[in-house]
Amino acid sequence: TVNGERLWQSLMEMAKIGPGVAGGNNRQTLTQADAEGRALFRQWCEEAGCTMGLDSLGTMFAQRPGLDPDALPVCIGSHLDTQPTGGKYDGVLGVLGGLEVIRTLNELDLRTKHPITVVNWTNEEGTRFAPAMLASGVFAGMHEQAWAEDRVDAGGTRFGDALDAIGWRGEEPVGARKMHAMFELHIEQGPILEAEGKEIGVVTHGQGLWWLQCTVTGKDAHTGSTPMAMRVDAGLGMARMTEAAHRIAMAHQPHAVGAVGHAEVFPNSRNVIPGRAVFTVDFRTPDLEKLTSMRTAFEAEAQRIAEEAGLGLEIEEVGHFDPVTFDPGCVAAVRRAAERLGHAHMDIVSGAGHDACWINRVAPTAMVMCPCVDGLSHNEAEEITPGWAKAGTDVLLHAVLETAEV
Amino acid sequence: TVNGERLWQSLMEMAKIGPGVAGGNNRQTLTQADAEGRALFRQWCEEAGCTMGLDSLGTMFAQRPGLDPDALPVCIGSHLDTQPTGGKYDGVLGVLGGLEVIRTLNELDLRTKHPITVVNWTNEEGTRFAPAMLASGVFAGMHEQAWAEDRVDAGGTRFGDALDAIGWRGEEPVGARKMHAMFELHIEQGPILEAEGKEIGVVTHGQGLWWLQCTVTGKDAHTGSTPMAMRVDAGLGMARMTEAAHRIAMAHQPHAVGAVGHAEVFPNSRNVIPGRAVFTVDFRTPDLEKLTSMRTAFEAEAQRIAEEAGLGLEIEEVGHFDPVTFDPGCVAAVRRAAERLGHAHMDIVSGAGHDACWINRVAPTAMVMCPCVDGLSHNEAEEITPGWAKAGTDVLLHAVLETAEV
Ligand SMILES: NC(=O)NCCC(=O)O
Ligand SMILES: NC(=O)NCCC(=O)O
Repeated sequence: TVNGERLWQSLMEMAKIGPGVAGGNNRQTLTQADAEGRALFRQWCEEAGCTMGLDSLGTMFAQRPGLDPDALPVCIGSHLDTQPTGGKYDGVLGVLGGLEVIRTLNELDLRTKHPITVVNWTNEEGTRFAPAMLASGVFAGMHEQAWAEDRVDAGGTRFGDALDAIGWRGEEPVGARKMHAMFELHIEQGPILEAEGKEIGVVTHGQGLWWLQCTVTGKDAHTGSTPMAMRVDAGLGMARMTEAAHRIAMAHQPHAVGAVGHAEVFPNSRNVIPGRAVFTVDFRTPDLEKLTSMRTAFEAEAQRIAEEAGLGLEIEEVGHFDPVTFDPGCVAAVRRAAERLGHAHMDIVSGAGHDACWINRVAPTAMVMCPCVDGLSHNEAEEITPGWAKAGTDVLLHAVLETAEV
Repeated sequence: TVNGERLWQSLMEMAKIGPGVAGGNNRQTLTQADAEGRALFRQWCEEAGCTMGLDSLGTMFAQRPGLDPDALPVCIGSHLDTQPTGGKYDGVLGVLGGLEVIRTLNELDLRTKHPITVVNWTNEEGTRFAPAMLASGVFAGMHEQAWAEDRVDAGGTRFGDALDAIGWRGEEPVGARKMHAMFELHIEQGPILEAEGKEIGVVTHGQGLWWLQCTVTGKDAHTGSTPMAMRVDAGLGMARMTEAAHRIAMAHQPHAVGAVGHAEVFPNSRNVIPGRAVFTVDFRTPDLEKLTSMRTAFEAEAQRIAEEAGLGLEIEEVGHFDPVTFDPGCVAAVRRAAERLGHAHMDIVSGAGHDACWINRVAPTAMVMCPCVDGLSHNEAEEITPGWAKAGTDVLLHAVLETAEV
């Protein structure tokens, strides 16, 4: 098993980079803090004897050689970027857990047939640049690289320019690296494992997602002197569509969610009726039919609200993935590892999107989950116990060892 | 009568400072653009033979001496600051119309018993620093100066520090200057005069206002992995309260308005359920009882929405004035001037707040309004005709001359 203390210490070291305002992290993708986090990870990997590969979207591949020169690597991947007010474990546990696997193998002087590669995927969170899981999406052939590089943040900076600015663009073509399998360890980000008293979630499926960015167009006008009947209030339209997204998610229970996390009005002045509002609806469910139905229902309802109020409406897809079924062989390896180690475990569906969801399309993939306190994530107060971190990483180690063949 | 071409040219010159993105202006209070606008106005006033006074909140007083050394000045006041996406005339017409009155008197070599003072009040718009009409409010004894200077903008800058930074703090104590009367010329910012085919509005009353800034507190959490039942969504609460503000305004028809122009969610990330939302409701009506009723109804309804959803709610008053009745003598002078000049006119209630609303509490005050195209204001497309500008300024000239005694 792994060294839980060393793992925890690395997690705490990484959390010092890009600190948040309330004990968590703000280490958003392609910022200076991200660059610092990458540099620390590279240093640790090199100290562990790995060679570092870097692709042209900045994804990092720390490789421990295998015994068979022809064998493809078994990868362990997640992400070091965080939400603007994110936690210390979301993504980070999966990357540093992978590093801990390598450190453990080094200590045990254990060689595997397949190389083992720890991957830090660029821009998993999708806050600064939508969509989420951008680099793994290009890696899996789901997006064009040029399109990915053209994504812009709220300040108008292109993804490609931000990548060059922090100096982490590599030469390796994206997707060129073939994989024997990939495993991702991640905190659950939901309440189920803790509630069920399980240390390990064997992730069999992932929810599908639609991110629908809506631009509502009304007419800027004075809040005092414009009669109610003359108003074309884009903010009011947004409010009604936000309620509609919630109503539609509630109508698709169980196993469906919907919310608006991103919302802005323009010019955002107390005495100007908003002439424009921009917001993004996030719908998810593991059921493809429901996913389509939520999207269709929302589009119709938003259109109805807009027409009734004389508002313009444009809906742009800024993120999408269908529900995912992980590779049965890899899932079984995770389940066997949990059983072998004697950890209480259960099958679970991932509520969040993960790089593993994309990589599953180009290599056999599965995920290990550990609980998080109160199911809380995307919050600086996100917390896990050192015991959960170690249990998850032990399962990761065993599943990887079985797949990489000792 | 005034020189309409000269007036129009000055309006167009001023509009070059702090240009907007769509033909209007972004010359928000205490910005570098505001400083430039002030410098141009000072230069014009000095060229017209005025001496420039400056009080310790940056309000400018361009004085043309009177014949009687003991007579108090007749003031003509409005504002040069604009909305972030504002028009070229809102406020500016009143200040440059005042300057045009002085230029006309100079040309005619007409002396008045009372001095005539053209005033540029600091921070009328209230977008960068709430509340609106801040300096005139302190002048009229409605706010403490220290409180006014402590107002902060969205970036955390204090009003007092911003004033020092642009170098427009004067030595004159705020409110020390006594006035014989004040007149404000302003565009209507609403549709009534144009619809009724009148060139002049004789403003008899002004609407009262409540600005209620609401902070809704929920819990940041992952939009994908947090079950619907566990969500405490501050953005959804804001959406419901926005709809409630609209519903309450509609229930107080006629002659009542309500809207949310300022709205923000935090952390404003597509995959984070908002843990906090901040927005401002703007309620107005000329009827004090209705004004109180709208406020009370909103507070109760917002509290109900918050409780139902398990949200925290704080409501802060960030702007307030009661309905205003302008001075009958000054109003009559405006009406007589319109009649004398043969302009089609009607009595009207101001939908917007104006510096005149505060000054009315410390000196006899009235307003002249001219139409604006489609009633549109607080929009870069705000437009008036040179004929309307001249008609309004002619009425201003005559009302002022009668009051200042030729
Ligand atoms: N794991 C995680 O939070 N990923 C971000 C993408 C998503 O919103 O699911
Ligand atoms: N005239 C004007 O737009 N004043 C700003 C204050 C208000 O919102 O009424």
